[in-house]
Amino acid sequence: MSVEKFIRKPLSEWMKQELPEHDIVISSRIRLARNLRNLPFPLLAVDSQAEEVIQTFESLLKREPLPGLGKLELFRMDQLSALEKKVLVEKHLISPQLAEESRKGAIIISENEDVSIMLNEEDHIRIQCLYPGFQIKEAWQKANLIDDWLEKELDYAFDERYGYLTSCPTNVGTGIRASVMVHLPALVMTKQINRILVAMNQVGLTVRGIYGEGSEALGNLFQISNQITLGQSEEEIIDHLNNVVRQVIDHERSAREMLVGSMRLQLEDKIHRSFGILSHARTIESKEATARLSDVLLGVDLGMIKNIPPAELNELWVMLQPAFLQTYFSENLSPEMRDERRATLIREHLNKYKNR
Amino acid sequence: MSVEKFIRKPLSEWMKQELPEHDIVISSRIRLARNLRNLPFPLLAVDSQAEEVIQTFESLLKREPLPGLGKLELFRMDQLSALEKKVLVEKHLISPQLAEESRKGAIIISENEDVSIMLNEEDHIRIQCLYPGFQIKEAWQKANLIDDWLEKELDYAFDERYGYLTSCPTNVGTGIRASVMVHLPALVMTKQINRILVAMNQVGLTVRGIYGEGSEALGNLFQISNQITLGQSEEEIIDHLNNVVRQVIDHERSAREMLVGSMRLQLEDKIHRSFGILSHARTIESKEATARLSDVLLGVDLGMIKNIPPAELNELWVMLQPAFLQTYFSENLSPEMRDERRATLIREHLNKYKNR
Repeated sequence: MSVEKFIRKPLSEWMKQELPEHDIVISSRIRLARNLRNLPFPLLAVDSQAEEVIQTFESLLKREPLPGLGKLELFRMDQLSALEKKVLVEKHLISPQLAEESRKGAIIISENEDVSIMLNEEDHIRIQCLYPGFQIKEAWQKANLIDDWLEKELDYAFDERYGYLTSCPTNVGTGIRASVMVHLPALVMTKQINRILVAMNQVGLTVRGIYGEGSEALGNLFQISNQITLGQSEEEIIDHLNNVVRQVIDHERSAREMLVGSMRLQLEDKIHRSFGILSHARTIESKEATARLSDVLLGVDLGMIKNIPPAELNELWVMLQPAFLQTYFSENLSPEMRDERRATLIREHLNKYKNR
Repeated sequence: MSVEKFIRKPLSEWMKQELPEHDIVISSRIRLARNLRNLPFPLLAVDSQAEEVIQTFESLLKREPLPGLGKLELFRMDQLSALEKKVLVEKHLISPQLAEESRKGAIIISENEDVSIMLNEEDHIRIQCLYPGFQIKEAWQKANLIDDWLEKELDYAFDERYGYLTSCPTNVGTGIRASVMVHLPALVMTKQINRILVAMNQVGLTVRGIYGEGSEALGNLFQISNQITLGQSEEEIIDHLNNVVRQVIDHERSAREMLVGSMRLQLEDKIHRSFGILSHARTIESKEATARLSDVLLGVDLGMIKNIPPAELNELWVMLQPAFLQTYFSENLSPEMRDERRATLIREHLNKYKNR
């Protein structure tokens, strides 16, 4: 039993299929926060109590696997190297908090990585389902299934009035966080993005850039998620998110059409130059690579770049991150060497397709 | 008899061979200024007198071709379109002054374009020999041969004390301007170029950037030529230029070695990015194209880019210029269309080699 296979490959095979709205929605994720009634929440738990949470799951996994979920494997954070943990963070399988701060953290991962369950993070249990493309409802169904299974086996901290109890009051109630990662290059280029971010806040959704520092959205990737967990059912929360994201998708498509109509040449030039640089550079920083990859992905989606499957680019996106790059090359790399290896990796990936 | 063939092709075949110091010296040129004794200099000549100069050459060309020079063709400026004249300027076969200002200008071009004789420019006769690579002595031998032939046939304005008389006093004496076009990217990158430009001025040579406005040297191309025409023999002038250029070549080579030794990765990155952009851009301005072509040429010279003959790049250099681009596509193009066509042309040229 080794974490190796989750570390080596940037994406599971099943994530590479063509999926609904995959040209704009990179992935859909559900996270459910749960706690056990008879133990203090992780922040207050002593090591032996946190250990009890892990052991509860270890025996549960041995006793009764959930049908249809495949093999589930449990890894304790203190078994993993710093680098292995970083890769799991970059793949969004665990949170930075679990990797860095949890004393007694553990992660359960399903074979094809669509399900991960964090133990002893902010809450005892965090069920996560991550699906590629726009599949937030499918992700919810899977998360709900796992939640029902666990609820049968475990005694959840639940209050008739407030719902599921959580460490942080912002999660109380349904304990659900539904989020969708979207690629919005045209809304950024046409400077409509800020208006849309404000509008989404007004309807109770949170948006943040991915991979960027602060408000800067590297690679034009944004994560849209619900703010409210209390006073609405899970289905209402997901329906609302689903509807708003559909509108965002429509806006992004209109912006793309407008760009293609009004400045096709400039757009093609930008896209192809980014492809030219990615397929030829000898050293490249993560920030630039991510921005140029966004251009290329847009080019693939618009049919301006042919013969590259979008999944290949999604894969590169993960591979570009620093820790993944280190495990990929099995070395502890200086930033300069990382930039060089990153450029090599990108070239090798893109040149597979260039000559077709 | 048509100027067509001199307009269509950017470089004659013979210019594409591998030549001495061709990685640094693009071309070598000799220009001799001569005037006829019995006619006023062009600035003062009336049309009928300028016409006499042309007719003198027309009958000379019919009567007695110079052995070994192949066919010589004469074109009057007023027979050529504005665009055709611009291309001849971009190919350095005629001066901008002959193209734009001369009322009764004409040009005689040899079959392989190594010899061109301008009539009624600043002087009655300007013999030019343009050779690729570092062949300033060979160019001088050819120019001298033509000069001897013409001197037998014509009555030159010559003074026993001052030598050949010319319109501008800076040309009096030998009437010679010997110049060498050099590609000095490493001296520019290492910021040694200014010191070298000053030093060349101190030893009586003039240096100016090519294709740039004012002192800016686009594409890191510089033309080095003699300032002094009086008080030295042609051989002394050429030997001096030759020796100084040899030193410049040595300096450029040392600078290249230093760059490769101390920042190979950055240099490779710059070179390959320029190649990636040139081979993928959909629109590109002349200025950027020239700068990036300089990077690629350096890459070819250093063996970092393989399979592209340097002559192909020299050819592209000429093709990038605005008027050539217009004749190549047989259209009168707006600047925007020109940038697009330029990008297309470059892509087509480089992609011939990319997949080898």
